[in-house]
Amino acid sequence: MKIYRYPERETWPEMVKRPVLEREEISGLITEIFESVEKEGDKALIQFNEKFDKAITPQLTVSETELEDAEQNVSEDLKKAIIQAKENISKFHTAQIAESEKIETVKGVICWRENRAVEKVGIYIPGGTAPLFSTVLMLAVPANLAGCQEIVLCTPPDSNGNINPAILFTAKLCGITKIFKTGGAQAIAAMTLGTESIPQVYKIFGPGNQFVVAAKEYAQRYGTAIDMPAGPSEVLVIADSEAVPAFCAADLLSQAEHGSDSQVVFITTDPTVFTETIDAVEKQLRELPRNEMAGKALENSLFILTNSIEEALEFSNLYAPEHLILALEVFEKYIPMIGNAGSVFLGNYSCESAGDYASGTNHTLPTNGYARNYSGVSLDSFVKKITFQHLSREGLKNIGKTIEVMAEAEGLTAHKNAVSIRLK
Amino acid sequence: MKIYRYPERETWPEMVKRPVLEREEISGLITEIFESVEKEGDKALIQFNEKFDKAITPQLTVSETELEDAEQNVSEDLKKAIIQAKENISKFHTAQIAESEKIETVKGVICWRENRAVEKVGIYIPGGTAPLFSTVLMLAVPANLAGCQEIVLCTPPDSNGNINPAILFTAKLCGITKIFKTGGAQAIAAMTLGTESIPQVYKIFGPGNQFVVAAKEYAQRYGTAIDMPAGPSEVLVIADSEAVPAFCAADLLSQAEHGSDSQVVFITTDPTVFTETIDAVEKQLRELPRNEMAGKALENSLFILTNSIEEALEFSNLYAPEHLILALEVFEKYIPMIGNAGSVFLGNYSCESAGDYASGTNHTLPTNGYARNYSGVSLDSFVKKITFQHLSREGLKNIGKTIEVMAEAEGLTAHKNAVSIRLK
Repeated sequence: MKIYRYPERETWPEMVKRPVLEREEISGLITEIFESVEKEGDKALIQFNEKFDKAITPQLTVSETELEDAEQNVSEDLKKAIIQAKENISKFHTAQIAESEKIETVKGVICWRENRAVEKVGIYIPGGTAPLFSTVLMLAVPANLAGCQEIVLCTPPDSNGNINPAILFTAKLCGITKIFKTGGAQAIAAMTLGTESIPQVYKIFGPGNQFVVAAKEYAQRYGTAIDMPAGPSEVLVIADSEAVPAFCAADLLSQAEHGSDSQVVFITTDPTVFTETIDAVEKQLRELPRNEMAGKALENSLFILTNSIEEALEFSNLYAPEHLILALEVFEKYIPMIGNAGSVFLGNYSCESAGDYASGTNHTLPTNGYARNYSGVSLDSFVKKITFQHLSREGLKNIGKTIEVMAEAEGLTAHKNAVSIRLK
Repeated sequence: MKIYRYPERETWPEMVKRPVLEREEISGLITEIFESVEKEGDKALIQFNEKFDKAITPQLTVSETELEDAEQNVSEDLKKAIIQAKENISKFHTAQIAESEKIETVKGVICWRENRAVEKVGIYIPGGTAPLFSTVLMLAVPANLAGCQEIVLCTPPDSNGNINPAILFTAKLCGITKIFKTGGAQAIAAMTLGTESIPQVYKIFGPGNQFVVAAKEYAQRYGTAIDMPAGPSEVLVIADSEAVPAFCAADLLSQAEHGSDSQVVFITTDPTVFTETIDAVEKQLRELPRNEMAGKALENSLFILTNSIEEALEFSNLYAPEHLILALEVFEKYIPMIGNAGSVFLGNYSCESAGDYASGTNHTLPTNGYARNYSGVSLDSFVKKITFQHLSREGLKNIGKTIEVMAEAEGLTAHKNAVSIRLK
């Protein structure tokens, strides 16, 4: 833990710095993987499964039987939970479907926007210790609501060549039928380039390790879009004297357990809450199964005592956290002061894990300071907004001179002609 | 011109391919420029102005006097035109300001989104033959409406060290006060990194040559966002028997005159319109001042005779044009079939130049096939949408078990604890 009491503003820019990602080192490997997948297609993926995941997968496609078996292997409690979460996520994202409003900017000139789904999207779900079926919900639900025609899901197999049943159950529940056993940079390459089994997509979503992040960056060279650039997960908690130290500690630890590179920041105006939260973190940490990872993340965590909530928010805006928790008695008046954050949790009962799983908001959010310039995933991420316009002859006449004068001043005569020839 | 009569579907994927950008060759130069600007700041920019633009610019900042002088040097006609265009663009983009609606996904669980402006944005306006003051409007108007706190504009000086007065007039009209004389990759580097004169920004907008495009890609490594990836400008015109060949030709040429790499596609179902449009293009081309450039662009243009409007739209969706013109008598029924396009112009009087300048829609649009997965610039491009949530104790109770079961199944005990500790 790094403890700061009333740090000077000049020191803030240094404090908000994130760990630098080592991207150059693995770029050669990423290029090689893309080249293999481009040349060898499925064969390359099958070989990578053996090499990286120790899995023999003659078939990359998850079969109907595997999907049915998965359903048997998920507890009724978990099924019920996933279904409730899906309902809430659907409800929140359905409200994001924007109506198209026609604007007559000038008489006879009508302009509007319409949403069109990104036709083909890819969802990447990492393997490893935590089977992130919740991320399937967060990406497949808005993709379906947006009307994406093809949804492809890639996730690495375990060493027996199987996919976690909760991931398969959730994918099936969301109507995803194209599920493939491949992970890492090679899965991103497959969705970017297409193989015999795996369709090429136009946009790739989902979290992953540094190889996946680097591969998603690389995929953009082929014209594929990605949800957003990524870094380690983050939380920043702002607490006043009414905050409950044990609750704050639990939130900080739920961030820390994501990985040893997780970013954890705690700011309070209250010296007692400050020390009690630090104590509570240490106490709760000991009881956690993932305490080694969480403990490592906490080494780099910031605990800051500050003069006012306003100052805490200024620090937070500079930091631009993925998750911001306002553990404040009265929080309404501070909402307009929030400039940069991915998702905000208000009051003592809005824990981050509510938004991670089940309140309805999306958990795919900008990290690494990207909350300054990126939004989290929403329905918008799965659509393009196309502008339309219709001009009547009268409409064109009403703005014709404006176009002609501007086009001429920009030296674009043919642009001017396109108007003049119509009004002759 | 490449002429195709009823081309087979199998040949389409080859036909829709864009010219490949040579990005690798200039990447070394871009790295060097960023390093110079990082090390030397303003000094590097002043040197680059001398080297690339043959301009002596001891002061990079455009002075108040220069802004006032510019106003004297723009004709009243052009001022009036720019003001009318600004009004229409403001009207259309104001309608994009979305209201925040609070959703109670479950009793006691309230979720919503709020817009926050990207605090600091940069606008790049290219120099060269065409002074793109229209692009100043297209970027500064939504930036202002979104509430961006700092808007920085960079544009290269001419060899006398001056900026085109129409650009300065438009910038001043839009309330931009931070205008700097620097162009090319070095301007992008300056806005990415910040210098003594030029503030660092979080997102960079605007068109440019291959160096600017490459520099914008490179800027992303520093965490700076960009409006979208770019390629040469494009139009695809679909015409039926009621289309006016002279109008179609004028639209095709207004695209061709942008540059020798402009992409021009014409599709019709009518053999007479087909040949007459080709003739009209050749005739109008001869009269254009920029006919050398336009002629070169036309060498790679596609003229396609097709069986039906539906087939033409299928081709168009595969091509994903920046601009799509439906020169059709009846167009309403075809609107839902449009899947991929940047901006659509409907009927015989909706010429592309209307949208380029004055109808109100934005002209910063996805090229190079990016209309499959990107929207054009809109108010949305200047804001982040932050999600908020408030759970009451009862709300957390209502979804608590769902969170606990899911967190446990993902192996994230601290996530579960954050709920359990609050409901104890």
